[in-house]
Amino acid sequence: MSQLNFQGIIPILITPFDAKGGIDFDSLQQLIEFNIAAGVHGLGIALGSEIFKLSDAERDQVLKVTVETVNGRVPVVMNTSAPGTDIAVSLSRRAQDLGADALMIYPMSFMPTGPESMLDLFDRLDAFVTLPIILQDVPQAPIGADAVRRIVLHASRTAAIKVETLPTVPQVSRMAAKVAEKLTVIGGAGGSYMIEEFRRGARGTMPFCSQPEDFVAVWNHLLDGNESTARVLFDDKIMAINRLAAQDGDIFYHVHKQILHRRGIIANAYVRSPTCSIDAITQREIDTLLDQFY
Amino acid sequence: MSQLNFQGIIPILITPFDAKGGIDFDSLQQLIEFNIAAGVHGLGIALGSEIFKLSDAERDQVLKVTVETVNGRVPVVMNTSAPGTDIAVSLSRRAQDLGADALMIYPMSFMPTGPESMLDLFDRLDAFVTLPIILQDVPQAPIGADAVRRIVLHASRTAAIKVETLPTVPQVSRMAAKVAEKLTVIGGAGGSYMIEEFRRGARGTMPFCSQPEDFVAVWNHLLDGNESTARVLFDDKIMAINRLAAQDGDIFYHVHKQILHRRGIIANAYVRSPTCSIDAITQREIDTLLDQFY
Amino acid sequence: MSQLNFQGIIPILITPFDAKGGIDFDSLQQLIEFNIAAGVHGLGIALGSEIFKLSDAERDQVLKVTVETVNGRVPVVMNTSAPGTDIAVSLSRRAQDLGADALMIYPMSFMPTGPESMLDLFDRLDAFVTLPIILQDVPQAPIGADAVRRIVLHASRTAAIKVETLPTVPQVSRMAAKVAEKLTVIGGAGGSYMIEEFRRGARGTMPFCSQPEDFVAVWNHLLDGNESTARVLFDDKIMAINRLAAQDGDIFYHVHKQILHRRGIIANAYVRSPTCSIDAITQREIDTLLDQFY
Amino acid sequence: MSQLNFQGIIPILITPFDAKGGIDFDSLQQLIEFNIAAGVHGLGIALGSEIFKLSDAERDQVLKVTVETVNGRVPVVMNTSAPGTDIAVSLSRRAQDLGADALMIYPMSFMPTGPESMLDLFDRLDAFVTLPIILQDVPQAPIGADAVRRIVLHASRTAAIKVETLPTVPQVSRMAAKVAEKLTVIGGAGGSYMIEEFRRGARGTMPFCSQPEDFVAVWNHLLDGNESTARVLFDDKIMAINRLAAQDGDIFYHVHKQILHRRGIIANAYVRSPTCSIDAITQREIDTLLDQFY
Repeated sequence: MSQLNFQGIIPILITPFDAKGGIDFDSLQQLIEFNIAAGVHGLGIALGSEIFKLSDAERDQVLKVTVETVNGRVPVVMNTSAPGTDIAVSLSRRAQDLGADALMIYPMSFMPTGPESMLDLFDRLDAFVTLPIILQDVPQAPIGADAVRRIVLHASRTAAIKVETLPTVPQVSRMAAKVAEKLTVIGGAGGSYMIEEFRRGARGTMPFCSQPEDFVAVWNHLLDGNESTARVLFDDKIMAINRLAAQDGDIFYHVHKQILHRRGIIANAYVRSPTCSIDAITQREIDTLLDQFY
Repeated sequence: MSQLNFQGIIPILITPFDAKGGIDFDSLQQLIEFNIAAGVHGLGIALGSEIFKLSDAERDQVLKVTVETVNGRVPVVMNTSAPGTDIAVSLSRRAQDLGADALMIYPMSFMPTGPESMLDLFDRLDAFVTLPIILQDVPQAPIGADAVRRIVLHASRTAAIKVETLPTVPQVSRMAAKVAEKLTVIGGAGGSYMIEEFRRGARGTMPFCSQPEDFVAVWNHLLDGNESTARVLFDDKIMAINRLAAQDGDIFYHVHKQILHRRGIIANAYVRSPTCSIDAITQREIDTLLDQFY
Repeated sequence: MSQLNFQGIIPILITPFDAKGGIDFDSLQQLIEFNIAAGVHGLGIALGSEIFKLSDAERDQVLKVTVETVNGRVPVVMNTSAPGTDIAVSLSRRAQDLGADALMIYPMSFMPTGPESMLDLFDRLDAFVTLPIILQDVPQAPIGADAVRRIVLHASRTAAIKVETLPTVPQVSRMAAKVAEKLTVIGGAGGSYMIEEFRRGARGTMPFCSQPEDFVAVWNHLLDGNESTARVLFDDKIMAINRLAAQDGDIFYHVHKQILHRRGIIANAYVRSPTCSIDAITQREIDTLLDQFY
Repeated sequence: MSQLNFQGIIPILITPFDAKGGIDFDSLQQLIEFNIAAGVHGLGIALGSEIFKLSDAERDQVLKVTVETVNGRVPVVMNTSAPGTDIAVSLSRRAQDLGADALMIYPMSFMPTGPESMLDLFDRLDAFVTLPIILQDVPQAPIGADAVRRIVLHASRTAAIKVETLPTVPQVSRMAAKVAEKLTVIGGAGGSYMIEEFRRGARGTMPFCSQPEDFVAVWNHLLDGNESTARVLFDDKIMAINRLAAQDGDIFYHVHKQILHRRGIIANAYVRSPTCSIDAITQREIDTLLDQFY
């Protein structure tokens, strides 16, 4: 991977499970092929992968299978955030050893230590890891543009900032104003404002992996300056799904897994616990929408 | 342990580290003896132990050494909260196998699934674990008294509710009104309002482990009805320390480890990263206060 | 108003200002006629009216002109929330004297006094006010379903609960389960999930007032059981606008006022300070979307 | 007032009410004399005055009586924050006309407009008001040090920053590092960390007005370098009261009013609604503590 620019559509892979909750690696491989065939620019393993519900051994397996299946065709990003610096370093070394092309990290902490506690993590990573790093600004651990700037000036290996603090549109603007000359700004909110973020300087987005062909098409229209074509496709396919996926708790996992199941990419739409339950009304709403598309 | 009532003073053990951040088990053993000698009614391994900065192997080792050292003299409580239900079950089984006397769990989640997602965890635990459970209400994952009641009616093995949502005094009152006939209510805030919580129905507290003799003395005065004696001791020794320990981020780790180091109980006051840094002014403030007492 | 059921589409009137920020009452009258002609089932003066930027005299004038213009054709709801109980009572009496048909109140407080401090307010209102009350559950002062139930059992004059805590869909479900036999549940989020809320028991919504004919049409389709027709109209017109209106800070004021200005209903789209600024990119985005519709 | 430096002890006056909730101006005058006699360096009318429960006419009366009673002996600070810029300007002009020596303002808003929306307010104030301004950083509307710096560079009339975001000690440090050369940094938390804040550059604090002689004494000891004497007095008198006053909701109003009533300064300890109720246990706790001192 000589040109790691982290631009474009970098879907986060869901983790496919079987009906008993075990990882289904065949489905994972199919999912990866499906996304690469759609033209994505990278793939990620992160919160959208229910990564925090995987054991350490499972994380390793998922990354290993992903790297082997991808086989260098696109960069693979691995989230190695952890509430302890030692653990984050250990996860990061492991990710590098297993072949990840970049790390994605947010200032995770159970205690109030502030985003700048990441400086210590980045210093320690220097001894062991050579991969570029994508900073993450998540609602559970927000980082303002001023703090990102301080981190970047300290840790030059930082390659991108992934925005997730809501609303993401002005947050992208603030990041672009402060750090765009040093970092790639990546949009958030599952792509729900990808066109607006693009206009303000975002140069990538990390959506779920259930509709990669639509995201790639919207992206290419944006690059080509065809905003109105991008918008029609976005509204029809992407926004209708994202709106449903945001209506309650973490039902986004269920919605995107059900899409992939219906499209024949994964064998089962199982979501690991804890997750909100899908009652009959909600399931009917999902079915009705998916009937339109797939 | 036939009488697991979780009443009284149940300090959370800090994890002693050496100067390089490795676990110092000799210090851990001394710390346990120090607390038992002071008359504590139980010991816990939890957030105050920096448990979230320990690897899985380290968690096991800390629990194993603790159980062996305690050797049945008081009950040992192990926090087995995890963001995935499978992981929490796995940690809980492991804790039971290693000899813990009770589990402490809060509704940890990176995604909005609500406190009632714990019902599923408790159902699954039934298949593998027979230990009593202490529910935790923490600021990062608050549970209201109505939700606690629903959980308890569902999962009868729940033995206690540990309150940490600030301010804890009215939260103890609300819990006592809703669930005191079924659960022991345990106070929070590092014991900073232990007398007020006691008056409202709390029957235990889980402070740091650096001043166990003072906490036990206050507790015994409360049981004996000597509130004013309890108050003088509390104000002089406990509140002065707790006030300092609350003045910035997570400096409580540093303050309590420095007390234990100064008292000759642990060899080093090292706190694992991430943690807020202690500048020269703060260190002088810690030194000045500790000079008064130790 | 013999049948105050607070069902259906009850838009919140924006307050039209002239270019200097003074209230434009001619535009207000036109806005009211425009909404009544569209078939709305009620009209409200509330947060969507920038009510908190109006002086007391201006509030009175806006309500007076609204009541006179409406002239009994639909019920008029007035928000009389205030951080002091005396002030809320005074605003409520004034609203009743000026002819409002119902009050809308949320547990506003600068200090942590809890939703049940509303009980005292409701008791005091009994001495002076006979109007029905719509409780509001807003993000700045959320009320859970259990607390709403306690309030309703105490204050039988409560007629409805307006949900605004995000996400609103499960909040509507919780309210419907706890209090639907006593209260009308009204959906929130500017109508962005009005179809989903309806399915879960909501019997009204209070959107902005810029597209009343579309909201009424969707509502009527829902009542007639034509969900798919409702959905097409909703997605095309309402959701596209609401999505834009949510992308940054409080730009919803600007978006809806610009729609009304473009449609010839109000003379000026001025929003009072403080409000987020609309930069050139955002203005172009608004223009592009409105060009499609109006 | 030629030397408005806003340094030292500037208590916030409670608003004394009679048993029916009307303002008791005789008690207010006594309260002012009591504080001036204690040597305070200024007096304020703000959140601690329940200002948000006063009608506009009552605010005017309180300020008028305060200015007349103070009669230039110390500066009088008036909080004129409001959710609308026009209202804040109007309140500020009125405060200047009535003789206030400074304004205190925080970025109050019901909608997400950000602290920098204050720039517009400050620009508009320039046309009407010549008073210096104390910025407020409150939990309900926090301002980071970077934002304060931007505001101060824009609005040179800003004279001080009052810190209230918890924990205040590191927030004082951040403010001192960013803006101490331009602004006086004033500590918060009702003075609970006044010694620690002083060490980090705070040059004043705004406590409640029930123990002014103790605050002044602590302050003078700090200025004289007698920190340990300051500490003993602080722990004995101030911290014991502040700890009790923080144990539940807004009981600080009740605690400080009861102190003043017991000391014979005000005729009644009435707190306006909404406020949390004081149950029998809490009242006994207040009585027991006050019996020690007064």
